Amino acid sequence: MIVLFTDFGLTGPYVGQMKAVLAQQAPGVPVIDLFADAPAFEPQLSAYLLAAYAPWFPPGTVFLCVVDPGVGTDERLPVAVRAGGRWFVGPGNGLFEPVMRRSPQPAEAWRIAWQPPQLSASFHGRDLFAPVAAELATAPTVSGRLETVDPALLARPDWPDDLARIVYVDPYGNAMTGLRASAVPGDAVLRVGGTSIAPARTFGEVPVGCTLWYENSTGLVEIAVNRGRAAEVLGLRPGMAVDFT
Amino acid sequence: MIVLFTDFGLTGPYVGQMKAVLAQQAPGVPVIDLFADAPAFEPQLSAYLLAAYAPWFPPGTVFLCVVDPGVGTDERLPVAVRAGGRWFVGPGNGLFEPVMRRSPQPAEAWRIAWQPPQLSASFHGRDLFAPVAAELATAPTVSGRLETVDPALLARPDWPDDLARIVYVDPYGNAMTGLRASAVPGDAVLRVGGTSIAPARTFGEVPVGCTLWYENSTGLVEIAVNRGRAAEVLGLRPGMAVDFT
Amino acid sequence: MIVLFTDFGLTGPYVGQMKAVLAQQAPGVPVIDLFADAPAFEPQLSAYLLAAYAPWFPPGTVFLCVVDPGVGTDERLPVAVRAGGRWFVGPGNGLFEPVMRRSPQPAEAWRIAWQPPQLSASFHGRDLFAPVAAELATAPTVSGRLETVDPALLARPDWPDDLARIVYVDPYGNAMTGLRASAVPGDAVLRVGGTSIAPARTFGEVPVGCTLWYENSTGLVEIAVNRGRAAEVLGLRPGMAVDFT
Repeated sequence: MIVLFTDFGLTGPYVGQMKAVLAQQAPGVPVIDLFADAPAFEPQLSAYLLAAYAPWFPPGTVFLCVVDPGVGTDERLPVAVRAGGRWFVGPGNGLFEPVMRRSPQPAEAWRIAWQPPQLSASFHGRDLFAPVAAELATAPTVSGRLETVDPALLARPDWPDDLARIVYVDPYGNAMTGLRASAVPGDAVLRVGGTSIAPARTFGEVPVGCTLWYENSTGLVEIAVNRGRAAEVLGLRPGMAVDFT
Repeated sequence: MIVLFTDFGLTGPYVGQMKAVLAQQAPGVPVIDLFADAPAFEPQLSAYLLAAYAPWFPPGTVFLCVVDPGVGTDERLPVAVRAGGRWFVGPGNGLFEPVMRRSPQPAEAWRIAWQPPQLSASFHGRDLFAPVAAELATAPTVSGRLETVDPALLARPDWPDDLARIVYVDPYGNAMTGLRASAVPGDAVLRVGGTSIAPARTFGEVPVGCTLWYENSTGLVEIAVNRGRAAEVLGLRPGMAVDFT
Repeated sequence: MIVLFTDFGLTGPYVGQMKAVLAQQAPGVPVIDLFADAPAFEPQLSAYLLAAYAPWFPPGTVFLCVVDPGVGTDERLPVAVRAGGRWFVGPGNGLFEPVMRRSPQPAEAWRIAWQPPQLSASFHGRDLFAPVAAELATAPTVSGRLETVDPALLARPDWPDDLARIVYVDPYGNAMTGLRASAVPGDAVLRVGGTSIAPARTFGEVPVGCTLWYENSTGLVEIAVNRGRAAEVLGLRPGMAVDFT
């Protein structure tokens, strides 16, 4: 299974062009759209979102990840990473730090040493990352396109284990944070932008129109309003800090 | 074939997570996105929209349907329904009433008696309904996960055969109603929000900028403006009542 | 591989209904969403967008294309075209003019002489074009549904080789033109709506917030703002004319 995680947006030809590469080079492998609207140009916010969703996919899944403001520069390496039995292909800009850190076995890392005949300056997702993801999804071993590197090269030791920021607003207006609920006391009061929000197990536990935070279906701390749109009511957007009292 | 009918919205990871379950548990079965923006939290409006589209799919199709404001409560049963030779899996909140009522053979109903090892409070689509849909799409018989119930348990006898309300606004701004055109005199004048609208067979039969109602490509009464956006011109939105004179 | 190129929009059941036809009539053939938001009701703008993307797909690819303001009228023929080793199925309203003109071998054209038992007035994509696309993607030869016509019948000799107009605004706010960069001097200054814009190879070559034009990853002249949204900054939208000095 190949899972797409990008900030390409819902429109435009970019996801389709990557899928055309995958259909040719990994025929028959299911391709799943997970996020096309990861926090744009924000590898750190995106990284904690990715790390929350990755464990829901089976071992061997290949994540093709493109949140890549440094595309076409020497700012970041193009990489492949193995963590928790899953593969991650994309830019080495921190996007894979939390999945590597949370891996039960030590994570492994490779530099993509191969270049396609035609490498555009702005679309490495199609030209570089998709072919490597296709190969990892179909071949049992690490490819000649990959060159081992020290995983420490990709590490961001100053990043926290969980990120106390909003990382995603979903179509219902619920705001996910980069915090696993398991990392927070279940009775703690969350604060965001001057508002204090008590925990609840389900929406129905609070009156209509009231705020709550709860453990969402993926295990993250999420801010919501019963029958309302928390992001609009509270002015929430990706990047805003949260804390607990 | 598995067809997705939800109010999850176009963004967010929810459709992708359900597809990952289907890819693992019903490998090789095509999965079609029909609606991800069915009327949110509105099982009745959604039910008549679903009933209009279901007959266009072949016998054996499994519809995985999630418009489920009561998720995680005892308000509704999780169910599977067989109607018109097709399967429907989702919440027993009225969503399958019109497909059951319109079934040429008596519809059958089952309660989902099975629970997965991990059942989230808020995402039964992924945890409960998708595995059952996957099984129905691949196995020839009713599963041990299902327990026969009297279809009358799901019936909404007070609901009409056709719903005289707007049930969907499409990307062109055309407003579909829950009325089959075959249930309405072809020369009747439709009224909605104080406006009277005459029928036409095609857009081209009325001048540019004028309103019409017509039988859309799925057989529903639909309100449109030739080369315009009816929903904006007339202030139409799902739930608004229509009638005929 | 079947590639979808439509102006159906991102929501609504229309793409899903076409895919259901393809899943039944071309089982196992990958279907790729390229554009669902091609310039609506604008066959000419859409034609140059399609012609830019088509060469990125392998020989034998079938493009199912629906930008069809004349649907249900006699204004245009329903056609299939072979150009550059690829198939194009859709309305004969100019949509395939640039792919035909750019074909290394003379393009061939067929009229769709077949009609399905049920042909809706408004959705030839589902009823007429999808079945023909499915057949071309699975059968090795031209079908009895197709009747040879003189390609000149579809030609638009007054259309230019490249279109000096904006044809698409992507999710980042970048504005693609219908001009191949290879058709423009690399040091030319582009003018659009009273603004003059210098070329650059990459975004990083200009200061943050400044405009540039560059050759995008598909070879088109594209207008952008480094770390900004060109379409909003400059008021760009599909159809606007550009020129060079």
